[in-house]
Amino acid sequence: MPLRTADEYRAGLVDGRRLHYQGQLVPDINAVADLRVAVDHAAIDFDLAQDPGHRDLAVTVDPDTGAEYNAGYRIPRNAEDVMARSNLIEAGTAAGGTVVTLIHEIGTDGLFALLRVLEGEAREKAEAYYRHCRDGDLALAVAQTDVKGDRSKAPHQQADPDLYVRVVDRSDEGIVVRGAKCHTTSSANGDEIIVFPTRAMGPDDADYAVSFAVPANADGLSLYVSGYGGGGGGHDAFDHPVSSRHKLLETLTVFDDVFVPWERVFLCQEPEKAGALALTFVEYHRFTAVSYKLPLVDAFVGAAAQIAEMNGVMKAGHIRDKLTHLVAYAETVRALTESAALRSRIGEHGIAYPDPMTTNMAKFTFASGFYKAVEWLQDIAGGLLVTGPSGADWDSTEIRPVLEKYYAGASPAPERLAMMNLISDLTARDLGGYHAVLAVHAEGSLEAEKLQMLRSYTANHAPKAIAYARKLAGLD
Amino acid sequence: MPLRTADEYRAGLVDGRRLHYQGQLVPDINAVADLRVAVDHAAIDFDLAQDPGHRDLAVTVDPDTGAEYNAGYRIPRNAEDVMARSNLIEAGTAAGGTVVTLIHEIGTDGLFALLRVLEGEAREKAEAYYRHCRDGDLALAVAQTDVKGDRSKAPHQQADPDLYVRVVDRSDEGIVVRGAKCHTTSSANGDEIIVFPTRAMGPDDADYAVSFAVPANADGLSLYVSGYGGGGGGHDAFDHPVSSRHKLLETLTVFDDVFVPWERVFLCQEPEKAGALALTFVEYHRFTAVSYKLPLVDAFVGAAAQIAEMNGVMKAGHIRDKLTHLVAYAETVRALTESAALRSRIGEHGIAYPDPMTTNMAKFTFASGFYKAVEWLQDIAGGLLVTGPSGADWDSTEIRPVLEKYYAGASPAPERLAMMNLISDLTARDLGGYHAVLAVHAEGSLEAEKLQMLRSYTANHAPKAIAYARKLAGLD
Amino acid sequence: MPLRTADEYRAGLVDGRRLHYQGQLVPDINAVADLRVAVDHAAIDFDLAQDPGHRDLAVTVDPDTGAEYNAGYRIPRNAEDVMARSNLIEAGTAAGGTVVTLIHEIGTDGLFALLRVLEGEAREKAEAYYRHCRDGDLALAVAQTDVKGDRSKAPHQQADPDLYVRVVDRSDEGIVVRGAKCHTTSSANGDEIIVFPTRAMGPDDADYAVSFAVPANADGLSLYVSGYGGGGGGHDAFDHPVSSRHKLLETLTVFDDVFVPWERVFLCQEPEKAGALALTFVEYHRFTAVSYKLPLVDAFVGAAAQIAEMNGVMKAGHIRDKLTHLVAYAETVRALTESAALRSRIGEHGIAYPDPMTTNMAKFTFASGFYKAVEWLQDIAGGLLVTGPSGADWDSTEIRPVLEKYYAGASPAPERLAMMNLISDLTARDLGGYHAVLAVHAEGSLEAEKLQMLRSYTANHAPKAIAYARKLAGLD
Amino acid sequence: MPLRTADEYRAGLVDGRRLHYQGQLVPDINAVADLRVAVDHAAIDFDLAQDPGHRDLAVTVDPDTGAEYNAGYRIPRNAEDVMARSNLIEAGTAAGGTVVTLIHEIGTDGLFALLRVLEGEAREKAEAYYRHCRDGDLALAVAQTDVKGDRSKAPHQQADPDLYVRVVDRSDEGIVVRGAKCHTTSSANGDEIIVFPTRAMGPDDADYAVSFAVPANADGLSLYVSGYGGGGGGHDAFDHPVSSRHKLLETLTVFDDVFVPWERVFLCQEPEKAGALALTFVEYHRFTAVSYKLPLVDAFVGAAAQIAEMNGVMKAGHIRDKLTHLVAYAETVRALTESAALRSRIGEHGIAYPDPMTTNMAKFTFASGFYKAVEWLQDIAGGLLVTGPSGADWDSTEIRPVLEKYYAGASPAPERLAMMNLISDLTARDLGGYHAVLAVHAEGSLEAEKLQMLRSYTANHAPKAIAYARKLAGLD
Repeated sequence: MPLRTADEYRAGLVDGRRLHYQGQLVPDINAVADLRVAVDHAAIDFDLAQDPGHRDLAVTVDPDTGAEYNAGYRIPRNAEDVMARSNLIEAGTAAGGTVVTLIHEIGTDGLFALLRVLEGEAREKAEAYYRHCRDGDLALAVAQTDVKGDRSKAPHQQADPDLYVRVVDRSDEGIVVRGAKCHTTSSANGDEIIVFPTRAMGPDDADYAVSFAVPANADGLSLYVSGYGGGGGGHDAFDHPVSSRHKLLETLTVFDDVFVPWERVFLCQEPEKAGALALTFVEYHRFTAVSYKLPLVDAFVGAAAQIAEMNGVMKAGHIRDKLTHLVAYAETVRALTESAALRSRIGEHGIAYPDPMTTNMAKFTFASGFYKAVEWLQDIAGGLLVTGPSGADWDSTEIRPVLEKYYAGASPAPERLAMMNLISDLTARDLGGYHAVLAVHAEGSLEAEKLQMLRSYTANHAPKAIAYARKLAGLD
Repeated sequence: MPLRTADEYRAGLVDGRRLHYQGQLVPDINAVADLRVAVDHAAIDFDLAQDPGHRDLAVTVDPDTGAEYNAGYRIPRNAEDVMARSNLIEAGTAAGGTVVTLIHEIGTDGLFALLRVLEGEAREKAEAYYRHCRDGDLALAVAQTDVKGDRSKAPHQQADPDLYVRVVDRSDEGIVVRGAKCHTTSSANGDEIIVFPTRAMGPDDADYAVSFAVPANADGLSLYVSGYGGGGGGHDAFDHPVSSRHKLLETLTVFDDVFVPWERVFLCQEPEKAGALALTFVEYHRFTAVSYKLPLVDAFVGAAAQIAEMNGVMKAGHIRDKLTHLVAYAETVRALTESAALRSRIGEHGIAYPDPMTTNMAKFTFASGFYKAVEWLQDIAGGLLVTGPSGADWDSTEIRPVLEKYYAGASPAPERLAMMNLISDLTARDLGGYHAVLAVHAEGSLEAEKLQMLRSYTANHAPKAIAYARKLAGLD
Repeated sequence: MPLRTADEYRAGLVDGRRLHYQGQLVPDINAVADLRVAVDHAAIDFDLAQDPGHRDLAVTVDPDTGAEYNAGYRIPRNAEDVMARSNLIEAGTAAGGTVVTLIHEIGTDGLFALLRVLEGEAREKAEAYYRHCRDGDLALAVAQTDVKGDRSKAPHQQADPDLYVRVVDRSDEGIVVRGAKCHTTSSANGDEIIVFPTRAMGPDDADYAVSFAVPANADGLSLYVSGYGGGGGGHDAFDHPVSSRHKLLETLTVFDDVFVPWERVFLCQEPEKAGALALTFVEYHRFTAVSYKLPLVDAFVGAAAQIAEMNGVMKAGHIRDKLTHLVAYAETVRALTESAALRSRIGEHGIAYPDPMTTNMAKFTFASGFYKAVEWLQDIAGGLLVTGPSGADWDSTEIRPVLEKYYAGASPAPERLAMMNLISDLTARDLGGYHAVLAVHAEGSLEAEKLQMLRSYTANHAPKAIAYARKLAGLD
Repeated sequence: MPLRTADEYRAGLVDGRRLHYQGQLVPDINAVADLRVAVDHAAIDFDLAQDPGHRDLAVTVDPDTGAEYNAGYRIPRNAEDVMARSNLIEAGTAAGGTVVTLIHEIGTDGLFALLRVLEGEAREKAEAYYRHCRDGDLALAVAQTDVKGDRSKAPHQQADPDLYVRVVDRSDEGIVVRGAKCHTTSSANGDEIIVFPTRAMGPDDADYAVSFAVPANADGLSLYVSGYGGGGGGHDAFDHPVSSRHKLLETLTVFDDVFVPWERVFLCQEPEKAGALALTFVEYHRFTAVSYKLPLVDAFVGAAAQIAEMNGVMKAGHIRDKLTHLVAYAETVRALTESAALRSRIGEHGIAYPDPMTTNMAKFTFASGFYKAVEWLQDIAGGLLVTGPSGADWDSTEIRPVLEKYYAGASPAPERLAMMNLISDLTARDLGGYHAVLAVHAEGSLEAEKLQMLRSYTANHAPKAIAYARKLAGLD
């Protein structure tokens, strides 16, 4: 099958899935304005692959068959592949207005994890599934985070056993699963959902050690789209220049006794492998994350430099200081992302992966510095971020001249307001809240990143540092 | 005139003022749902004065006449008065759901500044105006920040001379002013607007050194309400528990050759006094600010403690660490605010004012730590802040049982979602953006606060510290 | 007995105690130059009480007998007493060149804890001991921190049972104790040593739940003075203007089967009271700590302002910014210290104590900001801090003219070098290291301070904040 | 001439130079214990070149002549050369116990700058001088920082015209220079001193725009060695494990009418080139700096991990958190240093240089995080850093058993005390102060680094970020 077009992708989403939004069942996602924004946003990924200017980056060829497929599916074999993957993700996100498209990225992160961690028959199933997705140019979601209930308790200790997705039955044909995942991105507008365990599992949690894939219209599967951020469909492009066009959908993903045939079951009641699978996926996905954060931090720096000029404050010492800090923040994230790629390691089955310590450093640097970056940007921009005119004001022939007169800075009002609205959209409205919460929670929390940094450092780097300290201390 | 009721206040706003919102002229502010939320919010201030539980705090008596008036108008004479004023502002803001009502606070900050800085006839006019406002129990706005144009240039250097409000004519009857102020809070729903110069002015900017008061329906005055945050009128109380009920209105406040009679002109073309007036107002207003931030920081700590319990993570070391940092942040702001009051000084005409260095320290501590506080709170709460269900989902009899089952934590889902939505509203939606931008820009920027801290320290404290350092160094 | 003179104090230290320094047994502490510096430093406390300019602060009168005694011994009954105590400690430390004298402060912190926590006979013994110390105008040390061995293990779990001080025998006459305390300040140059348990103890650690007092020359007691910082005796006053004159002595304090008569035993094998005693002492002592940090932070600000002037850089924006941050740091510590006193509470037996939450906030603010403050100060001062001339260079008639010519700044070289050397001594030499390590470890670690803040907040303030958050969320 | 031995280097320093230390003229640097430590430290560099295990890194071959020379002199032509240079500097510093040897590094930084910036005859002289140094395997110092006097004034505005080194006479044979440089490292124990202007110069400062080289024993040149840090010669290896063996010498370097022949004059009264020369040197030197900081940050992490184990606290959450932050700090500096090398650019005359933005980011990350890193390390280690025993105590046969008993942790006392003393030496004693002050002042201040980051970003990266922001805002 050739690369799909954006319209083919859109059409494929009308498949009878049980999708809910704002309290209603949605028969056709393309027909609901808010949701359509997200579909169109994701469709950018298909458009890029058709775009001559991006084909080199976005399309690759199967050496065995000569068939073209989306480069997001390319299994990385070396540092160059990992770097190219980062560049592709960055380019797609840049086209997505700082919002990742995430219909190939997260799914392939998951596929690479399956292909690395699994062995034997399980791996063969993963390979078959990988080819199915790749050759069908499918849009993929990964459902990993369980709703979790009382977080101080293990899955089997919960009052309600369904708070982590679990196997409730198995037969010769397959398994039946029940429970719910949350924060599932791109499920509403994806073709397939790959399910991963959320963490390492002990023997008592064997039923929760399950990984499989289902189509988004599987029987018993219900998707509840979050109402957060209202919808681009209702946003004015004047004061929501990004979020009126770009949006991700997050679902509560409920498995109400969903049957999964064995060919799509990758892990079933094998708790000893749950941790490796969960972690391997996350490590790929954190690298995806830092790659897709680059357009956002670039936009911060560019917007800060622009609004400083437009306000006429670029020569103020404290403005330059804050701008410099923004530069250092953005470029440290970029340099660490590059380093993570250049230091790639070769894992099981010859599949490359970005260096975990450096990947986690990049992600942690991004996440732990994000709020301060927002502060610098808002500080440079000014209070107009939250007191400016609306699109309806701007459209009024009586009001616009007033706004043009009084909102002129060192640049004319239209430019200054446009830049102000960009910053407001990215940092001080719902999209800003979304970016911020994602910074500390998506792809693993700050604590998870710290844990992995220390773990990876301890395994690979600590012996040298400790030996050096001991030598300096006169020991050994 | 007795204390007004909330309904009297509401009725008084329908006075022919030229109010614009969302591209439309608004004849009756009470009739537009979004704006009505703000009116009802401000009305809390009047309700408090009628509430037996708050009268001690909110109502005071004129010792000369025995007449009651709103305690916000009480001229502070000592540290106790300053502390009481802080407590009143805090109580009003607590009732306002972390949003200050700001119809007495900012105006009296301005009146106290006029009463302290002015002398002779000007001061008599200010006193008369003070009594007019106090005895009429009026709702006041202060318009200080000019739109400013190119900030690298002085008012008279701007390409358009109207970018700072200025005197364009004067006669025996009064003056005519032109220009625009921005970020004017409570003008749309206030009775009077007091205008202050935005900063110190040089001789070339004499026309810009002007301070006066006008009613909100003055001829030539137009108010353009910002569309930011949409409006509480359109927000669901489920996922916007605060912003659906509490809101401030900010206007672009345009003076299109507005005539002001001399009795309401406090400063006219006297640049040498502009700085003192601007600064004295701001110093009072920063103290108002830290007083009204206290409910917000309390809500952060309380919500963090609650959601940690509800998520079942209270025993995690890193959660307790972040909670402790939130406590230290909130309580340092509170302690410094108290200290600023207790260290009050007596200024001109026997009017007390909070210690400027300590006030600025309190405000700077609040502002410079705010984004980090948001990060801690969002980190503790979780990704559900931006992926949760909408009010329409919650209202659906089919969907709610699913949400109740799967969003239960260590507490039932209704409680947990309510707390999650509170945190989301305060930090990750438009109100959150508003709170954040206000933290660094309202009542003076971070840089302005630092400047005042150093200035006040240098004047009052540096000599002792320098003498001590020199003694230690063996000098002197 | 009247107030003692400094010489009486010095003479009293030659009492046969087993004092070791630099590998040698020291028969007379006054005869060893390095140690004599510390004795003379402590003697400042006696001189102050004799100084007419300080008597109001430093001397008080027993209302029962009319006898004068050192005000450090005054049992605080209200907030004013607590504030006065803070002022006395600050004044003594200022006279001590930023180094607390600590011969009355820590001991009375301990005595107040004993007088509050103990009951019945034990409290009578504590009262008698209090009068003994007060009326004898004795210099007191407190030995609390055990050497602790493997910190992951409880006292009784240690490989060597002596790693916490413990009771090894008891008889009708008293008890016998063995073990060692470390970081004991002022034991080498104190008259009495009061021993506290280092923390709460469980039932298995009953033998370690012991509190008592012994004279510094008790049989079996050995004091090993740390060699850290060399000694003021060897420092040139040119490049060590403070540490050549002011110094504390820290000992490893070894109890080798020391007999303690019952009248000096305050707690013996009562593990249930160990925690309260340890904590109550520490809470007083943290307040002492923040009080004695004030001269140090003042010196930082004063020295920063001076060296900026002397270098000719006071007008640079980044210098003013750093100076402002130093001011905010110093004055926040001061304001919180004052608040802790003003918010004093009344404890058992009517004895007042500073508010624990605020005290811990003050201490934590000091400690967690200290290194950044050092950075700002060193940044403002310049590299000359570690590349400047020695006292011998300065004393050379050939070299001094060269130094005077080339080290002139905006001020003459002698002033600039004096200020530079002060900063170097306080931050970049051994005394600087001592100040820094004490910031994070003395009187409890950063973690201990955070624990107490949260604990105190939870007990006293959290209910209100939580109720407010719940109300905002629509719960309750 | 072959590679010199350490002894040849030592012998070469006895050349009649006017060296002063502690108020005395020093005829033979090798004969003064304190200074000898620094000579022996620098000699490590020569030993490394003789060491079979390091020859690959430390020795290279002239492709023209086949002669071997120290690899520090290799002119970088590409990213690999720059990376190799970083590795060599790191290895030399690791051998130097975290203290850079700095007898080849800084001098070649200067030589590369001369070879890049100069043209024509001046460049030929620089080339000849380069060969002279390289072929003689000379130890080089660079004197750049002038004493500067009042920093608010330009060189020619100073009250004393000699506060920046200047040309006072010129003739056919050469020039005569007068003035003083400070913070000159390795001049006392170097063979040659290369002089650079300290900054860009305006036309009025033409006489100060001078660059040249002189041998350390030039007539009229006097070197005044700083007394800071006392000397390794007086330090016990027990409690000063590093500083008793490793030390740099800093001099006040006075040119009292020193004659310089034209062949050694690289820039004379050409103010327009002063800035480029100063900056180019500094950019190389900052890369040298971050390369030589790597062993120090490694030692911090290694020592922190070790002392945590030895104290028995490795499992405490807050300890792991601090250790993780130390890891992130150290490894971010390392990753940025590598990135700076890998992103090397090719400058004038085909000479490569590390990417300036990335170099400055690496240096700024190191410098701005250093004090916090010290805090983490000291926090993990404990108060024993400044209350521990001295070498004399340890050597005492009576005292050592007491120390061994009571300072045992989870590891025996000898190991724990050795590690504690290492940390104390690196952070809490004079060497610690030296490391800290160097972090913020050596090779350019924090402000200089920020300036260069922004400048380099603006030139190379800003256009892309700005274009992206404008596109997102709907502009262009």
